[in-house]
Amino acid sequence: MANSEYRLDTVTGLWTLISEERSKRPDQFAQSNGKKPLPEHIPDCSFCLGNEHKTPPEIWAYRNDNVWWTRTIPNKYPFFPESLEAVVEGQPPIIKDGIFTRMPAYGSHEVIIETPLHNQDIHNRPEDLVREMLWMYKERLIAHKDEIGLKNVVIFKNQGESAGASIEHPHTQLTAASTGKMQMLNSELEGSQRYFLSENFRGQKGQCVYCDTIFQEFEKSERIIAENQYFVAFLPFASRFPFETWVMPKKHSSDYTSINPDEAWKLASITKEVFEKLNRTLGNFDYNMLLHTTPLNSHVHEHYHWHFEIIPRLTKIAGFELSGIYVNVVAPERAAKILLGKQ
Amino acid sequence: MANSEYRLDTVTGLWTLISEERSKRPDQFAQSNGKKPLPEHIPDCSFCLGNEHKTPPEIWAYRNDNVWWTRTIPNKYPFFPESLEAVVEGQPPIIKDGIFTRMPAYGSHEVIIETPLHNQDIHNRPEDLVREMLWMYKERLIAHKDEIGLKNVVIFKNQGESAGASIEHPHTQLTAASTGKMQMLNSELEGSQRYFLSENFRGQKGQCVYCDTIFQEFEKSERIIAENQYFVAFLPFASRFPFETWVMPKKHSSDYTSINPDEAWKLASITKEVFEKLNRTLGNFDYNMLLHTTPLNSHVHEHYHWHFEIIPRLTKIAGFELSGIYVNVVAPERAAKILLGKQ
Repeated sequence: MANSEYRLDTVTGLWTLISEERSKRPDQFAQSNGKKPLPEHIPDCSFCLGNEHKTPPEIWAYRNDNVWWTRTIPNKYPFFPESLEAVVEGQPPIIKDGIFTRMPAYGSHEVIIETPLHNQDIHNRPEDLVREMLWMYKERLIAHKDEIGLKNVVIFKNQGESAGASIEHPHTQLTAASTGKMQMLNSELEGSQRYFLSENFRGQKGQCVYCDTIFQEFEKSERIIAENQYFVAFLPFASRFPFETWVMPKKHSSDYTSINPDEAWKLASITKEVFEKLNRTLGNFDYNMLLHTTPLNSHVHEHYHWHFEIIPRLTKIAGFELSGIYVNVVAPERAAKILLGKQ
Repeated sequence: MANSEYRLDTVTGLWTLISEERSKRPDQFAQSNGKKPLPEHIPDCSFCLGNEHKTPPEIWAYRNDNVWWTRTIPNKYPFFPESLEAVVEGQPPIIKDGIFTRMPAYGSHEVIIETPLHNQDIHNRPEDLVREMLWMYKERLIAHKDEIGLKNVVIFKNQGESAGASIEHPHTQLTAASTGKMQMLNSELEGSQRYFLSENFRGQKGQCVYCDTIFQEFEKSERIIAENQYFVAFLPFASRFPFETWVMPKKHSSDYTSINPDEAWKLASITKEVFEKLNRTLGNFDYNMLLHTTPLNSHVHEHYHWHFEIIPRLTKIAGFELSGIYVNVVAPERAAKILLGKQ
């Protein structure tokens, strides 16, 4: 590649700047230095085993008698007040005030405690527990399908302070809102539809942009870091962040809730493998993980393709990024080589 | 306001979520605690007085004999290699590779050292030195006007680690690229043009959305924190970040380089006043400051309006923000009251 180049995200239409001139050596990204290893249990942690009374009442849990391994609870500090009455009455109104426009926000905001153990992040968690976390995502999505109006769901995980976590214990958040603009997902839905309706680079119409991307990633084999029967993990061409990794079903599927038990096992396996690889290079790193899937109660999309985005937070979002362009100092091809131990 | 509401940025069309449920008490935002006061001079700092030999050769400086007070130098770790030949030959080509699109990046990347003193941030700097920094912005913009093809300029300041600064000494960066997508500015240019071409809420056409915003801000007087003959400083209605503050000329103007010496004095005065107010509430806080102005060599726009965005980095950009919605835990009306000492 050129020393420095812009790369287009085919779906969103946004450019990123890959600038290896500014590159840090990969070992400078390792975040473990100075971080103390965490204990299995912290007496003060509300999410640790034995402290269930410190959380709001449980919504749903996987348990055997009194022993739970994955729990869902309401967020104590929700983004929006839960007001189902308001939701059931339909879309809250858009309120105009001269040049300004506002809209009340209602919905639910849950926390999924992924494991009873404080120090059990995905890379060092038994595979069956990773599967349980992924299955809980599916079950909580389905539970919200029945709530009239709560169609806008975001599932995201903040791990570590740089990623915005206020609690160390591994957990995922789910927000479901009646209104709301899932702006990134919307731009993906629009971009993938635009691609579907146009001729692709092979002159075909009616193709899924994500399926075409996977096809080309396999052809080049530069950025794929893991694969199994149902899933592939790769570093996207226009990665915004160093070591950003996406996990995607190989077969077209727009709706995460359609995964079956067999697929959930394979998804757990590849997810754990990705985190093991990242951890080997980056140490105990901070990250966000986001599930991108179709809005609840929308029909199945021929043009959209669900996936996870795993975003290590190794560099800061600074002034240039706030002007709209992410600068990535490690090209994804190089990051893939490093993760595969080839560099 | 409702406990939690979405607010629309009239220009970009993006929604933010104002969620005071999650609010921290304002005094919890003060970042000074634990930060050591900085000395005036650090022997190892390349940007400190007396260490001029540690930087690449100076491009431009304001000095009196051997004493400088504002210096511009090339960035040692530029985003893109400077290659004027490539630039002069015209736009570098867009390269297609199946589904992928890339574009080489060329341009210049400068650093403006704002002051010889290590600990002289804007709030505690003499007003005439703030003016010199602002004048240097103008002069470096004009210098790049003559470079054929380098029309995409971004001026931004990262202050403090949370804002992405790797050097403590107060400095601003300027990037000028032949290609490049100033994605935030582009969406502002498009959004303001859309507004200009449509009827506004008063049924008028041909209005500048920023002029209309200022008009309404003065009517309500809820979010304005400073004002003088030529400028106004306010916290925008759809603020993405707590205490985000914009400084804008009251009279319509799309191009920053049009400011005259008298206006530069008033701009220095209001900028310093804003930082004094922020510093009084937030302590020695990390922030980004971005100049939004029309691209170089573009004609004067009737629909665009230059301004500074000052963005304190008090909260993290986490998973939900990466899904496209910024969550702001302090409504700008409340932040304005706090800054004015009324709460």
